Amino acid sequence: MSSSLPTRTAPPAGAGWFAHRSVAGLAADLRAGRLTACDLVAAALAEIERWDPVVNAFVTVDEAGARRAAEQADRELADGVDRGPLHGIPIAVKDLIDVRGLPTTAGSRHFAGAVAADDADCVRRLRAAGAIVLGKTATHEIALGPTGDRAAGGPTRNPHLPSHMAGGSSSGSAAAVAAGMVPLALGTDTGGSVRVPAALCGVVGLKPTHGALSLHGVLPLAPSLDTVGPLARTAADCRLLWTVLSGTRPVSGTTPLAWMAPEQIHPTLPEVTAVVRAGLGDLTEVTEVAEVTVPGVAELREAYPVLQGSEAFAVHAERFAAAPELFGEEVRERLRAGSEVRGWEYVRARELRDRVRADVLGLLRRHGFLALPTVPLPAPPVDARTSAVGDVRAALLSLASPWSVLGLPALSVPAGLAGELPVGLQLVGPPGSEHRLLAIAEQL
Amino acid sequence: MSSSLPTRTAPPAGAGWFAHRSVAGLAADLRAGRLTACDLVAAALAEIERWDPVVNAFVTVDEAGARRAAEQADRELADGVDRGPLHGIPIAVKDLIDVRGLPTTAGSRHFAGAVAADDADCVRRLRAAGAIVLGKTATHEIALGPTGDRAAGGPTRNPHLPSHMAGGSSSGSAAAVAAGMVPLALGTDTGGSVRVPAALCGVVGLKPTHGALSLHGVLPLAPSLDTVGPLARTAADCRLLWTVLSGTRPVSGTTPLAWMAPEQIHPTLPEVTAVVRAGLGDLTEVTEVAEVTVPGVAELREAYPVLQGSEAFAVHAERFAAAPELFGEEVRERLRAGSEVRGWEYVRARELRDRVRADVLGLLRRHGFLALPTVPLPAPPVDARTSAVGDVRAALLSLASPWSVLGLPALSVPAGLAGELPVGLQLVGPPGSEHRLLAIAEQL
Repeated sequence: MSSSLPTRTAPPAGAGWFAHRSVAGLAADLRAGRLTACDLVAAALAEIERWDPVVNAFVTVDEAGARRAAEQADRELADGVDRGPLHGIPIAVKDLIDVRGLPTTAGSRHFAGAVAADDADCVRRLRAAGAIVLGKTATHEIALGPTGDRAAGGPTRNPHLPSHMAGGSSSGSAAAVAAGMVPLALGTDTGGSVRVPAALCGVVGLKPTHGALSLHGVLPLAPSLDTVGPLARTAADCRLLWTVLSGTRPVSGTTPLAWMAPEQIHPTLPEVTAVVRAGLGDLTEVTEVAEVTVPGVAELREAYPVLQGSEAFAVHAERFAAAPELFGEEVRERLRAGSEVRGWEYVRARELRDRVRADVLGLLRRHGFLALPTVPLPAPPVDARTSAVGDVRAALLSLASPWSVLGLPALSVPAGLAGELPVGLQLVGPPGSEHRLLAIAEQL
Repeated sequence: MSSSLPTRTAPPAGAGWFAHRSVAGLAADLRAGRLTACDLVAAALAEIERWDPVVNAFVTVDEAGARRAAEQADRELADGVDRGPLHGIPIAVKDLIDVRGLPTTAGSRHFAGAVAADDADCVRRLRAAGAIVLGKTATHEIALGPTGDRAAGGPTRNPHLPSHMAGGSSSGSAAAVAAGMVPLALGTDTGGSVRVPAALCGVVGLKPTHGALSLHGVLPLAPSLDTVGPLARTAADCRLLWTVLSGTRPVSGTTPLAWMAPEQIHPTLPEVTAVVRAGLGDLTEVTEVAEVTVPGVAELREAYPVLQGSEAFAVHAERFAAAPELFGEEVRERLRAGSEVRGWEYVRARELRDRVRADVLGLLRRHGFLALPTVPLPAPPVDARTSAVGDVRAALLSLASPWSVLGLPALSVPAGLAGELPVGLQLVGPPGSEHRLLAIAEQL
């Protein structure tokens, strides 16, 4: 199992039980009778009790449901029914994704008490594979923000340094995995909402190819960009979860990597670039494409708020008209700004997307997958809105959102620490290359 | 040839030479040596000289180019080179479509003198099939309007009654065929721009499935709606042109038809409905779907200006900013209104399109192709902006634009006269059913 343990980031000081164990190791222990699913649920509940008052990762903990599911998982294993590597493994689900019988609050007072009648498609897949839903994790309000510190339930804090943000919008999912409360979590990523908190909290987060997973049962943010994505402590754990979610098989073989200088897109702290560059050191095949400018990639960053703002307002227009005061101030202002985008600007953003996509696919064919930082700075303090590289929200999204606009899969993996805080390496590949991205990350 | 002659509308009084001859008949005459391509070009030039001062259908007549092409067509036939049924047949091309060496003015002072360096893809196909481009026909300015009376070159007039409009935006193409100046013409249709003038002038006009023909070399109006379409005197002539443009083969067999009451979409003059209904009389299989309301079809009418306005402004934003005064007042105001559409409204219009499309495709499967009027009133007077059924521009587009939003093929065929003016029957089918639409029309 050693190859699946993180080498470049330690878990947060005092991190919980799951921060020191691989999913494959837990699966082996379950089958050898060294542990039961009930033990895993009990460990998760204990770690939540210990950590969540600090981190605020969970919105709902379904203790009764998780214990029932664990008993069933244990019974099945005893009866010789083995649902595969996630059988009996606890998982947390972002509170934007429906879990039958639990509220989906989306971090917003607009959705308070909205109990889901059915599981989202992705949750159904997890249950069929024997995974145990432990509860619902905090999201930036309606998933509209990369900081994770604007939500009806208050900010989620970074397990490495609780004065700092966890990132968002899948703040609770990343923080819960980083703190070792659960081994796995589901998030959603529209412009960076899995990758940004994964990078800031020092865990692995995958944004799949747009359209690869069903979004049925997931509150939309911007449908032409939305994805559901897995978070885990290591690439190996993430691969197990992705395999179940996607119903696809891992691949082997090597893929050339090309380094993309992040300044092509956004100013980046030199220590972030240094950590990420060092994290790639073992990979002998990394070529430099610092001088290759991808025409239009920087423009994609401007296309993102146009696409996302228009689509998000289309989702929430009636709520905005009926009860704007139920949205928090910052999200309300972002929705309002989205409502002002013109149709012709949206049309041009879509045209730009189509044009740049062809260029980037060509670049990936010629040079290999792209490697760059996930985020140009480590986690800022909670509530910070300015930074050494400019506006915090714009900076957090800057290196992640272009690949969302293009619909490409992108993976964030821990690359090391800058001071006390984790830094993420982002890998970007062509459509459908999720398993190849995970295979690269496992080599690191 | 008698089956391809129009039975329900006479050509305009005194209509030109081509108003009394089928393309198949001309093709036979060419091969029998009874006529030459040079004769056809001479006839067309003579009819243009006689009719165009009244109708104003042509923007550019390429006399020298047409005569050269006719000489070559005659030489080829004499040498045994036969390019098929359009060999040696004159055709007019809407002045939104590039013809090498001729200006593409788009009816706008913004494009005055813009000589095309290459043929549009559709023109290339015509030339390869031996057709002879006679010149460029008038379009409503930048194709943004269904009346055909706002263009840098002045209004195009209806050959049946020159005080009345030809309809638009392919005004010159429809009027030139109706007046017998040419047997065939190319137009473009974004929300009715082939079908509306075809109906108002009493000719056949086909809007193909969106995406069926290349738009390379055609000035865009609204790319998600734009199509290039053929106009002809009869369905049989139109079938020959469509066969060449699309590279597809005619089909045989019958298709059930369902009558759709136009009031589901827009108020319609009773005499228009009566003429169209009577025109369907021979077809024994017409069922009534008057009571079937297609959920959302009326809403599509409202989605149309949202989609078209946003996309059109995205095409013309720089021209609008740099020299708004070069647009005519009415088109300038429509562009400005398009610039005001919000991105979220555009997003909702696209979502509506996807939703209604599924319902309408189901309806077409269950009930057969739809039959309804093309336009709810006969040609209004030039410059009229109000009518017995409301705003003229909205009325002209009302029954045509929903099928554009859905990307479906739709055909307008002459159904008879209301007073002195023609009335069009519109047939709508599923994607790719152009030849079946034409086969139905040939039975009428």
